[in-house]
Amino acid sequence: MKNTNGSNDVINKIIEVPKTIIEAPINLIKQLTPKIKKKNTSKIGLPPGSIVYLGERKVEKVTITLTEYDEKDCDQYEIKSVEEIDPFTDTPQVTWVSVCGLHETDFLKQIGEKFKVHPLVLEDILNTDTRPKIEITDDYLFIVMKLVLFNPEKKILETEQVSFILGRTFLFSFSEKTDDIFNPVKERITGQLGKIRKRGSDYLLYTLMDIVVDHYFFALEKVDERIELLDDEVINNTDKSQIENIYHLRNLLLMIRRSIWPSREIVSQLIKDESDLIHESTEPYLRDLYDHTIHINETIEQQREITNGLMEIYLSMMSNRMNEVMKVLTVIATIFIPLTFIVGIYGMNFPNMPEMSWPWAYFALWGVMIGLSVLMLYFFKKKKWF
Amino acid sequence: MKNTNGSNDVINKIIEVPKTIIEAPINLIKQLTPKIKKKNTSKIGLPPGSIVYLGERKVEKVTITLTEYDEKDCDQYEIKSVEEIDPFTDTPQVTWVSVCGLHETDFLKQIGEKFKVHPLVLEDILNTDTRPKIEITDDYLFIVMKLVLFNPEKKILETEQVSFILGRTFLFSFSEKTDDIFNPVKERITGQLGKIRKRGSDYLLYTLMDIVVDHYFFALEKVDERIELLDDEVINNTDKSQIENIYHLRNLLLMIRRSIWPSREIVSQLIKDESDLIHESTEPYLRDLYDHTIHINETIEQQREITNGLMEIYLSMMSNRMNEVMKVLTVIATIFIPLTFIVGIYGMNFPNMPEMSWPWAYFALWGVMIGLSVLMLYFFKKKKWF
Amino acid sequence: MKNTNGSNDVINKIIEVPKTIIEAPINLIKQLTPKIKKKNTSKIGLPPGSIVYLGERKVEKVTITLTEYDEKDCDQYEIKSVEEIDPFTDTPQVTWVSVCGLHETDFLKQIGEKFKVHPLVLEDILNTDTRPKIEITDDYLFIVMKLVLFNPEKKILETEQVSFILGRTFLFSFSEKTDDIFNPVKERITGQLGKIRKRGSDYLLYTLMDIVVDHYFFALEKVDERIELLDDEVINNTDKSQIENIYHLRNLLLMIRRSIWPSREIVSQLIKDESDLIHESTEPYLRDLYDHTIHINETIEQQREITNGLMEIYLSMMSNRMNEVMKVLTVIATIFIPLTFIVGIYGMNFPNMPEMSWPWAYFALWGVMIGLSVLMLYFFKKKKWF
Amino acid sequence: MKNTNGSNDVINKIIEVPKTIIEAPINLIKQLTPKIKKKNTSKIGLPPGSIVYLGERKVEKVTITLTEYDEKDCDQYEIKSVEEIDPFTDTPQVTWVSVCGLHETDFLKQIGEKFKVHPLVLEDILNTDTRPKIEITDDYLFIVMKLVLFNPEKKILETEQVSFILGRTFLFSFSEKTDDIFNPVKERITGQLGKIRKRGSDYLLYTLMDIVVDHYFFALEKVDERIELLDDEVINNTDKSQIENIYHLRNLLLMIRRSIWPSREIVSQLIKDESDLIHESTEPYLRDLYDHTIHINETIEQQREITNGLMEIYLSMMSNRMNEVMKVLTVIATIFIPLTFIVGIYGMNFPNMPEMSWPWAYFALWGVMIGLSVLMLYFFKKKKWF
Amino acid sequence: MKNTNGSNDVINKIIEVPKTIIEAPINLIKQLTPKIKKKNTSKIGLPPGSIVYLGERKVEKVTITLTEYDEKDCDQYEIKSVEEIDPFTDTPQVTWVSVCGLHETDFLKQIGEKFKVHPLVLEDILNTDTRPKIEITDDYLFIVMKLVLFNPEKKILETEQVSFILGRTFLFSFSEKTDDIFNPVKERITGQLGKIRKRGSDYLLYTLMDIVVDHYFFALEKVDERIELLDDEVINNTDKSQIENIYHLRNLLLMIRRSIWPSREIVSQLIKDESDLIHESTEPYLRDLYDHTIHINETIEQQREITNGLMEIYLSMMSNRMNEVMKVLTVIATIFIPLTFIVGIYGMNFPNMPEMSWPWAYFALWGVMIGLSVLMLYFFKKKKWF
Repeated sequence: MKNTNGSNDVINKIIEVPKTIIEAPINLIKQLTPKIKKKNTSKIGLPPGSIVYLGERKVEKVTITLTEYDEKDCDQYEIKSVEEIDPFTDTPQVTWVSVCGLHETDFLKQIGEKFKVHPLVLEDILNTDTRPKIEITDDYLFIVMKLVLFNPEKKILETEQVSFILGRTFLFSFSEKTDDIFNPVKERITGQLGKIRKRGSDYLLYTLMDIVVDHYFFALEKVDERIELLDDEVINNTDKSQIENIYHLRNLLLMIRRSIWPSREIVSQLIKDESDLIHESTEPYLRDLYDHTIHINETIEQQREITNGLMEIYLSMMSNRMNEVMKVLTVIATIFIPLTFIVGIYGMNFPNMPEMSWPWAYFALWGVMIGLSVLMLYFFKKKKWF
Repeated sequence: MKNTNGSNDVINKIIEVPKTIIEAPINLIKQLTPKIKKKNTSKIGLPPGSIVYLGERKVEKVTITLTEYDEKDCDQYEIKSVEEIDPFTDTPQVTWVSVCGLHETDFLKQIGEKFKVHPLVLEDILNTDTRPKIEITDDYLFIVMKLVLFNPEKKILETEQVSFILGRTFLFSFSEKTDDIFNPVKERITGQLGKIRKRGSDYLLYTLMDIVVDHYFFALEKVDERIELLDDEVINNTDKSQIENIYHLRNLLLMIRRSIWPSREIVSQLIKDESDLIHESTEPYLRDLYDHTIHINETIEQQREITNGLMEIYLSMMSNRMNEVMKVLTVIATIFIPLTFIVGIYGMNFPNMPEMSWPWAYFALWGVMIGLSVLMLYFFKKKKWF
Repeated sequence: MKNTNGSNDVINKIIEVPKTIIEAPINLIKQLTPKIKKKNTSKIGLPPGSIVYLGERKVEKVTITLTEYDEKDCDQYEIKSVEEIDPFTDTPQVTWVSVCGLHETDFLKQIGEKFKVHPLVLEDILNTDTRPKIEITDDYLFIVMKLVLFNPEKKILETEQVSFILGRTFLFSFSEKTDDIFNPVKERITGQLGKIRKRGSDYLLYTLMDIVVDHYFFALEKVDERIELLDDEVINNTDKSQIENIYHLRNLLLMIRRSIWPSREIVSQLIKDESDLIHESTEPYLRDLYDHTIHINETIEQQREITNGLMEIYLSMMSNRMNEVMKVLTVIATIFIPLTFIVGIYGMNFPNMPEMSWPWAYFALWGVMIGLSVLMLYFFKKKKWF
Repeated sequence: MKNTNGSNDVINKIIEVPKTIIEAPINLIKQLTPKIKKKNTSKIGLPPGSIVYLGERKVEKVTITLTEYDEKDCDQYEIKSVEEIDPFTDTPQVTWVSVCGLHETDFLKQIGEKFKVHPLVLEDILNTDTRPKIEITDDYLFIVMKLVLFNPEKKILETEQVSFILGRTFLFSFSEKTDDIFNPVKERITGQLGKIRKRGSDYLLYTLMDIVVDHYFFALEKVDERIELLDDEVINNTDKSQIENIYHLRNLLLMIRRSIWPSREIVSQLIKDESDLIHESTEPYLRDLYDHTIHINETIEQQREITNGLMEIYLSMMSNRMNEVMKVLTVIATIFIPLTFIVGIYGMNFPNMPEMSWPWAYFALWGVMIGLSVLMLYFFKKKKWF
Repeated sequence: MKNTNGSNDVINKIIEVPKTIIEAPINLIKQLTPKIKKKNTSKIGLPPGSIVYLGERKVEKVTITLTEYDEKDCDQYEIKSVEEIDPFTDTPQVTWVSVCGLHETDFLKQIGEKFKVHPLVLEDILNTDTRPKIEITDDYLFIVMKLVLFNPEKKILETEQVSFILGRTFLFSFSEKTDDIFNPVKERITGQLGKIRKRGSDYLLYTLMDIVVDHYFFALEKVDERIELLDDEVINNTDKSQIENIYHLRNLLLMIRRSIWPSREIVSQLIKDESDLIHESTEPYLRDLYDHTIHINETIEQQREITNGLMEIYLSMMSNRMNEVMKVLTVIATIFIPLTFIVGIYGMNFPNMPEMSWPWAYFALWGVMIGLSVLMLYFFKKKKWF
């Protein structure tokens, strides 16, 4: 017993992450589900398009970063109010306003008024339970996606909402927390790496979406690690806690699938879109992104099937173990029950038992009993019971 | 045992609602299913379009409320007969006639004649078993939806039928019971809150449908609470009643799905509709509503999958428990059966048993028996049987 | 035992019908399946379009009723030969020829020649195994449907084939047995009830199809009653016969689904049909009928899912019961096996067993054994084994 | 035991065929699967369109029958070479060349050259593993179908490939073995039965395809017989061999489905085809054939569902039987284990056991033991354990 | 026991390959999954279109073979740099450049620049985790496929990526390892076998894709062999390792399906493509290839269903075995437990047991006990417990 626990500890030390992932699902579900519901419930009766933030406050302060660039120049400012955006709105340069933290709704309202964004779009940005979606109008394109991030501190998978509003020369991105994941793009812009500086706001949108999708691969990799670990555990050493783990893993996959699944449709609609917001030269990139989303969805389905298989193998292993226990019981019981009967006979107090008077009777009895045991053991061996 | 029940009680006090939900399904099914059938059966042979109320009489008195409003004015009357509607029919203001209680069919017949509504539409309004649907004609739009309401008194989920007839400047809404759920809208109209007063009857229809869909979220939240509770119960303390609960929960989800599922199609057809009954400016709101219906349907599917998972985990827990019982039996039996055999030997009455004459034989036997037991316990520990 | 059986009897007396339904499925399957096959087999090699009746002869004599009506007049005749139809063929009135009994094929052949009906249509009318279908030509419309009728004498569900040929002013209906189910329509025509007299042959077709579909609701209601009964039985008192019942119920649902499922497609094609055989004013009625067929199909699917759930709950109940048996065995065995060992010790005949000489040893032993039993019982209670 | 085997024998004698069908699946799979693979494997590297026969040689000699007919005349010849076809190619009469046996590829090559048939078509005719399919060109129509035949000698189901090439006035049919199944058509042509002589080559194609489809019904009937037999067996007398039979039946249904399924698509494409090879007057016949293929496919799906249900009922019966065994063990053990303990007590050798001195003690003990047994039996009866 | 192992060895010797396949899946999954993930993970943040090789280095040296041919001439060179291709680019002959080994990215970059290939295409060629796909532009056609090869040394199934770029007169093929599988094509070209020399680069593409698909058949054949072996094993001699094998086989099929499935879509799009890159005369070949891909996909689905069936039969066999064990235990225990009780009675030390004084009591007891055993054995025989 010590041995097994010991080897378990070793495994856990080597692959520390997955162990905590498995605790994650419960937290995840507990965190996500009530949040989703409460929001919607508390909104019953509110007029549609109400601009109220319904999510959790994840950051202290709202940070708004404005990046303006074209092939030659590139500037980055931290801004406070919508007025500061004014000088950049009508320039041909690409203007990227990245809003991080959603609980100050005034800024959003001003953007809504200035850029004539529909109130329902603003409501969707603030409602962190919005289903991933795309809205295409003549003037702008609105996209909601879910980030699935691995939190290395809490060691759990977390979902977070990101929204984009794409205009001809500007892009707004909204996220609940610090947008570290978009930092590589900011660096590529300021550092003039890649072709991003030579291209428009639509290519910027593609680059950000590409990063979101890349993180899906990373999240599924974490799930994969856990599946492999569980796989080994179940086959080598079935125990009761594994069924819970498999069950929670399945629920986690259900949550992830729901967050990720619609992204395929979103990219597909971006490609089909005939407005002039998406340049023709960006299309090959979007098609590539589309292939990635298909790949992701196939991976999720495959993981779900493997997890279902794990459940079946777990149940079968349980049943195997049961069989083993039964066999031991049966072997012991069927050998000793007849023997006990025999010794019981000669414990009887009848005065005229002829065997009693035979001097070698006791030893003969031992012979009979040993012979019987050997016969039975042979029978069980033949039946392959041990 | 006291302990567990005690903690159960505590859980039940904290989350009192779900406990009663679980009793609800049976009532729900018993209430719904015979009602559905009897209606249809009793109608065999009746000519189509017969205007007979086939539902349960849920309210004593039929209440008809007429609300007329435009951006400037707003009036509300309680009316008795169709004649009282006359002065409002040809005005440009929006007229909302909300009928609550369906067992007085005369009023409906008069409306049918006055507004040239097809007899089958009237039949559908009265038949509380109509499948949610939409009928689009040149003059009006007819929608049937199912409300899924949580009854806080009986603490069960109830379904109720709501129908809408939308004309250019009027909207009829029909419900079986008091339409409290539409009160917030009435207040918004009279209190001049939101943009509802600035918009037409189609926006009013959207607002009412939005409330119906919001209540779906609320109902699913109740189901979710129950799933979580069952989840904990099954994992911590499997017992026989849970399988019934899971089974009834699944059937409840089947009922809910059937009531809710078609709403997606209804909203989709409203968006596609090319008649002039729906203004272009209402379309973004309908698209938003459409996203909500998809969200709802996905949630139902997810809950169904989680419930199926619960069933599997329940069965596995049962089997685990069985294994545990078997292991205890096997350990006790396999230890004592050989020992009983041994003591049986020396209970035999053979005169010439050499061991009998050894003075330390009895104590040696104890040693042998204790040694054997320890060996066996070691073997069982190694097999991880306890 | 008496008690339970007794309550079963009470249930059976109250709901006598479903009990017999459950015996029905087997009969149904036995009746249907060989019939279907033999027909098709015996036809291998026959030229296509052979007009041979392949069904069972269900009535002694073929009855042909001709009803002619328009808004003013209405006549009904019993006819023998096709010649008698002649005077009615070219009149503007609606002529309904209802043929009951299919084994006299001459009449059918004459109709085929007179009304230029395709030989394959005639073959389909006679082959009572035809899949429900619709054939649309320029001159007539041909529909095959399956009636699912509850036979109150044999107390089983029976399927029967009905075919319709719709022309501009005439309708032929063919059924295997007495068409009592169409009698309400005949009464409505002669009694001038409803709008049927004001409308054409297409409305008559709709009315008859509506009755066929209404009987589907009735059949499913019977199935529903049985499901509810089984539901109660399985949960309260699992026994071996229920698994058979569930299995046969599932097969019955498979048979019913197959008979009913295509009707949705048939009605859908009737609505889409652009020939002038269906008046525009009949369309709302057909759309209503279409909704009913969807409703029916959804109900079947739901019943199938509930039945599958029943199977699972049955298996789980079986397994629960097994657990209970195992627990009793384990409790009894684990208490008495050690005790038997103890008394075995003092049944040994060693001369120098020190305990033997202690005067209070026997009573002390009783104390030890009672203490041990109490300890074990406490352990089992804690494990919640009883 | 003799009894049961005996009744099994009786069943087998009555329905001898199905018993052998059940042995068939294994043979079928063994025959089909390696054949399929080897062919494909051995072809890796061969240029596409290689005209090599890859199937099994099923007949000694290739037989080629040429039948030429129109409404007036009809001739039938046995031919050896393609040259003999020459005089018939340009006549308006229908020419049917029926080739039986595929291992002489020269004839096929000559046909390919003469009638400009694509080499891939010739390859497909010879590759007896071709998936059923249809190829439509301007000049000819190429169809591959699978026959599923019941071999009455070996008593197994066999698949065989049939191919058709339809031109304007000619039809080639290719089969692996003697085409007895097409003999009725030959007789109808020579005997001037039915309308076949009045119609073109497309009607001839329809007639042959109709026969192929009719044999599907026959094959499924054989499967049905087996399902019914297994059904009875499983419910009445579950034993170990049945699970194998169910498993093989399922695999057989998989094989059959794969052979039959594509035929629906083939007929559907024939109907949609707009080339002039298919006359308009043949279309109703093809639609009828299409309905048959749907019927067949539905039957297969139904049989698959019933077979899955059989599997479940088998497993449940096994588990029932297990329960029964357990109950007997538990009843016997729980009654006798306490009694054995009691008699053990009075086998102890303590000198001062007060009960020993009571004269009626032995008889009282019997009373106690009998009372205990009765109590326990009552308890078990109440629990319905026997 | 020796016997069984012995026969297992014999089986393994005869069919040595499958045994190793079964060990393959684990390796396969272990090899594939981390590779896939690491690549994608390490790419997060990299600008799209980065030309970095992310796969495993499978060959030491990159080999580039250039083959140029038309109907008359044919030359083959081994080249080092892109410049060497120059003389062949504008000739009407077909130029096939086959690149084997992907880790030297410079060559690829030069090809990209010279032939104006999109950077994302180059990225896809190097990323060996690309999902099989097709990209169609005006100038070239880009295809990625997965080879599923049986490695005869390691005796496992391996996947490998092949990419094709098709221009009007040239074809580039890229593979990770030595392209032996394309050697037959090279031989056919140089040896002037088949019609390949008479046709264009599109026919060459078809030929290569045909070989890739042919290898799918071969891989599935290997899977089939394993299924058959497992099938026999499970039915004849269920043991614990088989469940693992079935589970891994299922996961292997999931991996294979994912590699093979998209090939159907690729060929379908090739056929639909309206660019002039694919000649009309090649279309019949592509349609044939399309049929093969459908065939392959159907085979995979069938194998998956059979494997699922195997799982069920395995579980049922386990449960059968359990039953057998239980029966033996029950028979032995229920016969000897009552007998042990009886002998216990006469081991009691009551002074006044009347039976003790009867001289024939001992022998009578033997009679009673033998009678009881025979009765019980008869009862068990009747219940068919052995």
